[in-house]
Parts: sequence; structure tokens; C-alpha cells
Amino acid sequence: MKSSKLIIDKKRCGEALGSAEIRQFINGFVSGEVPDYQMSALAMAICCRGMTDRETADLTDVMMKSGRVLQWGDLITADKHSTGGVGDKLSLIIQPLVSSCNVAVPSLTGRALGLTGGTADKLETIPGYNASLSIEDFTRVVQEVGVSMTVQTEEITPADRKLYALRDVTATVASIPLIVASILSKKLAEGAGTLVFDVKCGSGAFMKTIEDASLLARRLVDGAKAAGRKAAALVSDMSMPLGSAIGNANEVKEAIDILSGSNNPLYREEIELSIELAALMVSLAKDIELDEARVQCKTNLSNGSALVKFKEMVEAQGGNLKSFEKLLSKPVFRFKIQAVRSGYISSIDAGTVAAAAFELGTGRKKQGDKIDPLAGIKLDVKMGDRVCVGTPLATLEKSDSPDGLEAAAANLLKAFTISPNSPEGRSIILQRI
Amino acid sequence: MKSSKLIIDKKRCGEALGSAEIRQFINGFVSGEVPDYQMSALAMAICCRGMTDRETADLTDVMMKSGRVLQWGDLITADKHSTGGVGDKLSLIIQPLVSSCNVAVPSLTGRALGLTGGTADKLETIPGYNASLSIEDFTRVVQEVGVSMTVQTEEITPADRKLYALRDVTATVASIPLIVASILSKKLAEGAGTLVFDVKCGSGAFMKTIEDASLLARRLVDGAKAAGRKAAALVSDMSMPLGSAIGNANEVKEAIDILSGSNNPLYREEIELSIELAALMVSLAKDIELDEARVQCKTNLSNGSALVKFKEMVEAQGGNLKSFEKLLSKPVFRFKIQAVRSGYISSIDAGTVAAAAFELGTGRKKQGDKIDPLAGIKLDVKMGDRVCVGTPLATLEKSDSPDGLEAAAANLLKAFTISPNSPEGRSIILQRI
Repeated sequence: MKSSKLIIDKKRCGEALGSAEIRQFINGFVSGEVPDYQMSALAMAICCRGMTDRETADLTDVMMKSGRVLQWGDLITADKHSTGGVGDKLSLIIQPLVSSCNVAVPSLTGRALGLTGGTADKLETIPGYNASLSIEDFTRVVQEVGVSMTVQTEEITPADRKLYALRDVTATVASIPLIVASILSKKLAEGAGTLVFDVKCGSGAFMKTIEDASLLARRLVDGAKAAGRKAAALVSDMSMPLGSAIGNANEVKEAIDILSGSNNPLYREEIELSIELAALMVSLAKDIELDEARVQCKTNLSNGSALVKFKEMVEAQGGNLKSFEKLLSKPVFRFKIQAVRSGYISSIDAGTVAAAAFELGTGRKKQGDKIDPLAGIKLDVKMGDRVCVGTPLATLEKSDSPDGLEAAAANLLKAFTISPNSPEGRSIILQRI
Repeated sequence: MKSSKLIIDKKRCGEALGSAEIRQFINGFVSGEVPDYQMSALAMAICCRGMTDRETADLTDVMMKSGRVLQWGDLITADKHSTGGVGDKLSLIIQPLVSSCNVAVPSLTGRALGLTGGTADKLETIPGYNASLSIEDFTRVVQEVGVSMTVQTEEITPADRKLYALRDVTATVASIPLIVASILSKKLAEGAGTLVFDVKCGSGAFMKTIEDASLLARRLVDGAKAAGRKAAALVSDMSMPLGSAIGNANEVKEAIDILSGSNNPLYREEIELSIELAALMVSLAKDIELDEARVQCKTNLSNGSALVKFKEMVEAQGGNLKSFEKLLSKPVFRFKIQAVRSGYISSIDAGTVAAAAFELGTGRKKQGDKIDPLAGIKLDVKMGDRVCVGTPLATLEKSDSPDGLEAAAANLLKAFTISPNSPEGRSIILQRI
């Protein structure tokens, strides 16, 4: 057996590691034989020297097999993964929608950390909703309802959890092979037969350029296919926030609005992207044409079938939507911002909006921090809207105290660019892979 | 203050770190605030992305200042550093020789680890020799005798000791800026006004190519000059072992032979290189012409002045040369190898010779291992020598048991290449910097 040091050295010199070397190193790291300082040195060498597709596949495989790997037998299954964006409540819409098209959706999700929102945190603002199901309960809800969304348990890909925690503190997150292995190992362990990736691109996303996002999307799709899954990806625009609401409870509210057939123009791109991603999942999973799948998805979104699935899932996981309505009607501290000049909204910088929302208490600085379920931002305008001096741009809300509202509002205002001319339209979908 | 993670990230992206960033990170590492896994990630990023001269100087400076920094007042001082080679007993010759030219030599040295021999281990084969002097005793011997050789204490550059131990297990040794900072910080802390570097190049050295060796030599000289010292370097050939003896006691014996004026042709290159390095030290330290310094050195080597200094130093540090003679006369297990074909010795691979010597017990696999003082190899030929079938090539020796002698001999035989034609002569000094 090769020493860990020689394996690190090989990667430092830019050589490709063998399958057995990757297996030995990662398994050793999980068991504690390989110390953190060797793992972080290898992670940095991978950041600097890269990995071949074969190495990435090997790394994904050993990470996937570090924990439980779910299997769904004859059930037709699909899941979507998003690389995370601002106001991205798409999972709350897409997963029930796909389920309503008779494709089961076993969806293991995450919690908020840093500026990134967590689907589990959003769902947990529904009183009673249990987002920490055991694997057994998760499996049961998927089989009975057709969709379940819960936090990934410690039994799934422990190697990824341990490695990610180390990468986070050693500046080794930004590496395509490590990102691919982290995402794919979790999604493959979930067992869904079809995987669709929504790779976000822009100021509010991890990938800032279309080239990087496109490369990541291609690698994710190739990796999923190499592991025997059906797969596709969209690269979508995250230079501006998705929809109107950014926060937790308010994002769930917006998702319910959309599942209830709302045609609010602020939701247009959000609905378009939801339908495209859902249609891709249904088309691949059921082996039908994309056009046919798109019609099914549009129908089930407008006729309430998707909403029914959402409600069934919430109920199966203990959530109470009546109590959620009550929560939403609670008094909160508000601050509105208005346009200070006339013109057209030419940009709403997603990164700046996310930072302002974070100031209000929508996220966590470190694991274990509490979030304010009612904190958040509601945008009143979207790109291309004509505004005058005094037109409302957005409302900031938080529940505990008014402290910090004005400061966050001042920062939020910087997110808006108002130009004399109407901006060129830009599609939410930048690339299909 | 910037977080350690952001500093690592900056280097990962290939940017130059600021002086304050380097100071904060390294001091944090020494104090324990920066954990090993962050230090190893930064070390790997430095391996992959490099460092500017200014960054290397900053790193050297903070490492030097992590411990005691010696000062010699008006004393004219010089020291030599070798990057380590096979059969390299030059320090034992040069340091007393330079001292005999009225330049004090405060020489902190190391122990053997891996295939690299340690001057301290060699000197400790002299019964009674104390190679673990306190800084105070070291200073006293330098002032009274003019030369002292002892192991670097823990008070000198603790940052380097801690960092080197981590680099050794994380495959981050092979980085020019890290090597430069490690060597220079120790040598600068020693306080000598003149520093001369012997950078070895070839199969028996860390630097395998002349380009790498030359780059390292240039960086060492530039770094030492930037820190206000006089400095020069030679790149010397280490494709073949230096001299005849490889081991510990037998290397001391060879050094004493040379200090006693021996003209054994096997020592020719060794003497040539010793005189060149010593002359550089004397010339820079005393600010005299190199030719004049070379004459002084040759004279003091042949007239016994250098040997006197060696004996004074040994005595001042408790060593007994009479007991050493007795040790050398002890019975040992021997195995001789002979030429199996006729021709000219065209190569004696230093790496292979070192590995065979290591098998006999001349070195340490890990810190704390015991070495066999009498183990070693005595070469009977040098490059260009004409041999016939049966001509003795070398003798292997070890003291505890004959186990492993034959196996080591079989490996040693592979080091010799015998060709039908006389090889072209090659100078021991490859480059002057």
C-alpha cells in the first residue's frame, strides 16, 4: 500500500491518481488514519492541479459508498439539484410538481450556511414540519406520497460531510472536481434514477462566469451518466434574485402562491425555470418527449395537482399549513425602500440582495446559529420595470426588533440600478446541457 | 486581521501575500492558533503557486525571528551550508580550515534523517564529543576556539522545526521558496556575517537538475544578501559520491586524513571543492581577493593549521581522538565487491550508493532511530579509473552482525557502470553564483 504522503506528492506533481490510491486515501480520512493535515494538503493539490474525469468518478464513488446508498426498486424516481441562488425556492415548486406527474422525488436537502439559503430551513418555518426524518420515514413518505424533502442524515456520504467541513476552513472549496464529487456523491447515494442540475451563474451564485458554470454543469451531467443515471442540466441566470421573496417563510408563501396558479408578473422567470427543470426530470424519468413533459407540468401547476402533492408531503411530515398562515399574519418590523430617480430597473444585484437579507437574519454565520423565519425581503419590481421617484422597490422585514432594518435597507438600495433606457431582455435559462 | 482561510485562498489564487499576512499566519501556526490542516493547505498552495522574492524574504524573516537570533559583535564570522549529499563530510574539513584563517565559524548542524547524513552524527562517533551544546557553550567555544559544530537547539527557529515536520508528512518539501526560507532562517539566526552555500545537484541530491540547483543557489544568495549578509554559492556535482567513505566514523576518519595532508587520489574532487568553498568564505568574510584566500586555505590545509583547529574544537566539546582511534580498530563485518568486467568506471550512482549505505545502518528511518557508527561503505575507485575483472570496487562494513551485508552489496554493485571507453572528465564544480 502506498503511503498517504506519496499519494499527495503524486497529485502535487500533477499526475493522475489511481482508483486504489483515491479509495485508500479517502477511506483512511473517514476512518481517521489519514489526518486532517494530509487531507487538506491533498485537497489543495487537487485545487491547483485538477483531476481527470476518471479520477473525479473514482472520488465520487468512494465518497458515495462511505455511507448508505438508497435504492428504489421499480419506482420511477428523479431529483433536482441546484447549486444555490438568491431567492431560490424552486425545489418547493418543482419537487411536488414532478411528483404530481407520477415520478417519485426522494429529495435530500440542506440547511442555510453563509449567504446560501437552505430548503430545509424554509420548510421548517411551517409549524410541525419535520425536516429531520430518519431514512426509514423518508423512504415511507416517498413511497406513500411520491415526494419527500428532508435533511440529509449522517448515514449518507459521511466522507463528504467530513471533507466539506475541512475544505470550508482550508480555502479548498473552489475546485470543480471536488465540487462535482461532493454534489454527485450525495445525489447518487439518494438513489434517484434521473438527476437534473440547475447550475446558477452570476453575482448571487458560486459560479460567477458562464464558462465556469457550463463546465460544472457538463461535469455533473457526465458524472451522473457515468454512474448509470439519466441526467441533464440547465445553466440559469443568478445575476438577479429569483421571484420576489428572499427569506424563509416568505419564500414558502411565494412557492404556495405559484403552486396555487398565481400569475404575478414578478414570478414569470421563476415559473419558466421551474417548468423547464420539472419537464426535464419528467421527460428523462418517464422517457417521453420534452414537449409532452412540459405540457404535463404546465397543466399540473395550473390545475392544482402540484399543490395537492405539496400539501400531502407537508402533512405526511407533520406540518400544519393553517398554523403557517397564522405565522405569516404575525406583526413584523418593516422598512420600505423607494426609487430615488426615474427610469428603468436595469439590474438588481443578487449578491447585494443576499447580503442585505443575511443582515436581517435569514441565514447562519456558523452551523447551529438560529435563523429568523419571518426575516426577509420582498422585491416589488423586476428588471425592465419602469419606475418614478417614490415607486416602491422592496420591503425589508424582521420579527424580533427593528434594529438593523435601516442599515440593511441602505445596503439593499445599492442593489438596484436605474437607467434611462429600457434594458435588453435576458432569458433566465442561459444554457442547456 | 484577515482570517487564515482568506490568506490561504489568496495564495491558492496565485496572488502574493502581504508581509503582515505572512507574519500573522506563521506566528499563528507556531502559537497553535492556526491548526496544522490550514498550514499544510497553505504549504501546498505555495508549492503549486510559488512565492515572490519579497514573500520568501518575509517568510524567512518571521521564521528567523520565531526563536533566538545570535549576534557576534565585532567577530568576523562565516558559515557554510550544504544541501546534503552522499559522502559529504566537507563541513568537517572546511569549518576548521576557515577558522584557521582567522574567520570564526559558528556552525549549527543537523542529524541524519532518511538518506541524508548528519554532520552531528558523524562528529558524535568521536567518543565524548558533545554535539548538543547549549547556546551559551556554543558561543563560548566559537569565541575561544574559533569554530564550533553542534546541533541546532530548540531555541533556534522553532517555526522552521514545526513547519518542516508538517511539510515532511504532507509532501510539501519540494518548494524552492519553502526550502529557501527553511535554510536561510536557520543560517541567519546563527548570526554569521558571511554565508556560503554548497548546492548539490544529481542523483544523490535533493535537486536532480542543474536548473533547479542553480535556481535554489541564486535564491539563497539573494535572500542572504537581502538580509544584509555577504553570500555566495557553488552548485556542485552529486551524481557520484564525494571521496571514498560513506558512513559516520569512516567519514570523520577521511576528514582527518585530508586535514592531515593526505593526497589520496580518491579525495581529489573532495579537496578541490573544500578549498573552493573555504576560500569563498574567507575571501568574503575578510574582504580579500579569492586567489589570496585560496592560497591561505591551501597552505593551512597542508601545514596542519586546519587539523589543529579541528583537534581544538573536538577537545573543547569533550571529544577524545585517542578513543576514536580505538573505535576504528574494532572488528567489523566486511564484504568486498569486485568488478565483473573490464573497462573504465564511467559512473558511480550516488543515490544507489546512499541507499546501500542506509541498508547497512548509517542513517535513520525516523527521528530517534539509532545509527551504527561503524557501518558504511569505502569506495576503492573513482570515475575514470581503469578496472579489470576482480578489481576491488568497494568494501561494505557494519558492526553488529553480518545480516544484510550481502544484500546491500548486491545493490551497491548496481551503482557502478563500467564502460569500454574512458569517460569524459567532469568538474566537481558545476556553477559559481
